[in-house]
Amino acid sequence: MAPMNVSDLGEFALIDRLAAVGATPPESLIVGIGDDAAAWRSGDAIVLATTDSLVAGVHFLPDRTPWRDVGWKALVVNVSDIAAMGGTPQFALVTLGLPPDTPVAAVDDLYAGLRECAVEYGVAIAGGDIVRAPQAAITVALLGRGETDDRGRPLLLRRDAARAGHLLAVTGTLGDSAAGLRRLREGAPADDPLVRAHLRPRPPLEAGRLAVRAGVPCAIDISDGLLEDLGHVCRMSGLGAVVRAADVPLSAELRAAFPEDALALACGGGEDYQLLFAAPPSAIDLLMAAGVQLTIIGEVTGEGEPRPRLLDAAGAELRFDSGGWDHLRPGTGTS
Amino acid sequence: MAPMNVSDLGEFALIDRLAAVGATPPESLIVGIGDDAAAWRSGDAIVLATTDSLVAGVHFLPDRTPWRDVGWKALVVNVSDIAAMGGTPQFALVTLGLPPDTPVAAVDDLYAGLRECAVEYGVAIAGGDIVRAPQAAITVALLGRGETDDRGRPLLLRRDAARAGHLLAVTGTLGDSAAGLRRLREGAPADDPLVRAHLRPRPPLEAGRLAVRAGVPCAIDISDGLLEDLGHVCRMSGLGAVVRAADVPLSAELRAAFPEDALALACGGGEDYQLLFAAPPSAIDLLMAAGVQLTIIGEVTGEGEPRPRLLDAAGAELRFDSGGWDHLRPGTGTS
Repeated sequence: MAPMNVSDLGEFALIDRLAAVGATPPESLIVGIGDDAAAWRSGDAIVLATTDSLVAGVHFLPDRTPWRDVGWKALVVNVSDIAAMGGTPQFALVTLGLPPDTPVAAVDDLYAGLRECAVEYGVAIAGGDIVRAPQAAITVALLGRGETDDRGRPLLLRRDAARAGHLLAVTGTLGDSAAGLRRLREGAPADDPLVRAHLRPRPPLEAGRLAVRAGVPCAIDISDGLLEDLGHVCRMSGLGAVVRAADVPLSAELRAAFPEDALALACGGGEDYQLLFAAPPSAIDLLMAAGVQLTIIGEVTGEGEPRPRLLDAAGAELRFDSGGWDHLRPGTGTS
Repeated sequence: MAPMNVSDLGEFALIDRLAAVGATPPESLIVGIGDDAAAWRSGDAIVLATTDSLVAGVHFLPDRTPWRDVGWKALVVNVSDIAAMGGTPQFALVTLGLPPDTPVAAVDDLYAGLRECAVEYGVAIAGGDIVRAPQAAITVALLGRGETDDRGRPLLLRRDAARAGHLLAVTGTLGDSAAGLRRLREGAPADDPLVRAHLRPRPPLEAGRLAVRAGVPCAIDISDGLLEDLGHVCRMSGLGAVVRAADVPLSAELRAAFPEDALALACGGGEDYQLLFAAPPSAIDLLMAAGVQLTIIGEVTGEGEPRPRLLDAAGAELRFDSGGWDHLRPGTGTS
């Protein structure tokens, strides 16, 4: 048998192995590897922490993506993780890997995009590291604080907290980012609205905070694709889910640009950085009453396999070839 | 004029530009970019945060360095930063960039080294990200907590807190790591004591915590080389410093292996991950009384340029060609 490579195993299996590393987690750890962000108690506060990387040629197309947008995205994907915990981002540590021949102007543009995102979401850059690397890469670790109730108990949106009978609801529209990536590859300009959705996603931070206050127990950010991300919720909660295809929110731009593929892009495309909530109907009502625009797309079910099923108007299951991607497997999404 | 590349500008200038990015730092931020770690208040606690990367071919020699040692080092260099703030490391976020053809066995070895370090220093792995990359790289963000006094005020070791008349004292011996790197390049085995010092540095975490308790106000970890790191303290404190060459602690192994270069390796070599303290004599006395092995190597001076001077027995200044390195400049240290 040939020795196994990481591309055979895939990202999620490697993350699972990583989860087994380290000292026995202290009591202060509330949420470890496997959710959108980690959470622990520090004194009377809840600290949230997450990290995400963008690598040139893997996560963005260096010749098609303005550096400014790379800077925005490198931070905003982490903001999305904090939003998916119902928390508030505060401080970022930024690591840049740069080939020595990178123009300083490119780094300044990247910083400008970082700054725009930092100002927009109230993040301060508290640390950083700059290293020589064969390919440009940016890794952001983002720290924040989680909400607590009146008695100091943590209020967090967790992936494993879905229960049978919960409604599934999403913010915004889905599929625009994947459609924008497709248009970017076709040479569309950066100000195309779909390309914009891809390059400048805007996670609904306030919706996450309002959700924990409204009693929503479960959320995930839609980064890998609706069905893939809902699949994480299903596996971690040990429950099935149904999504009604007709209820998945699609933008007018998406329908117009890709009428045939709009649903597939919305369900499998990824990088929308919207939030998916699972919650009792009463909590969803409260959240909508608080002014959050939501679309109810289905519900959590008690029976069957712990995976999502996408249903057509007649209740028959729809399948796509791909639901999200796995960053290490060859031939999968570069975005 | 040709457009400027990052190799012309260097790491520290890029970090300075990064420091200008982001929203106005909130009041809760105590220490931002420029120290060993960032520090902020979260409720009644002090959160410490730092990040460091190792890139194959830049920071380690992939064909000569066991993956297990890469795993140890990736975490321990961050532990060293937390030690240099007088704090306690708690949680790590680990980002791995891996070429798809990386053998799973290599990742398992890397995880084993990470685990050894995590157990040794009481760190839990709380999160991670795994991405495809053209070259193996590991970035660790390490979070910890800082000490406070009886009234809840932060007790931190800061680079900018040196004062004229402070003594300079270091833990351990210096130069072993740089000597070990040289021997590793010559083909020495991994169990050579100097190679061991290079591959498995052991930051004196407890010494940092005892130092803040003893009233030491200023420290830095020796990662870039004694004179380079003392230079950071001088610049940030706006003061000069003298180091007596005869008092720089050298191990017997270093003297035996490189009798001619021992002092140069100790002063300019880097990656020792020992601590350099600047403190009033009374605090140094207390710290030594608490059982910390220290060597007093010089003192902080009020006059002259804000840079360190290395003096021979006659009081004349010694100079080396290189004092530390800058990670982005070509031709500088690969370790």
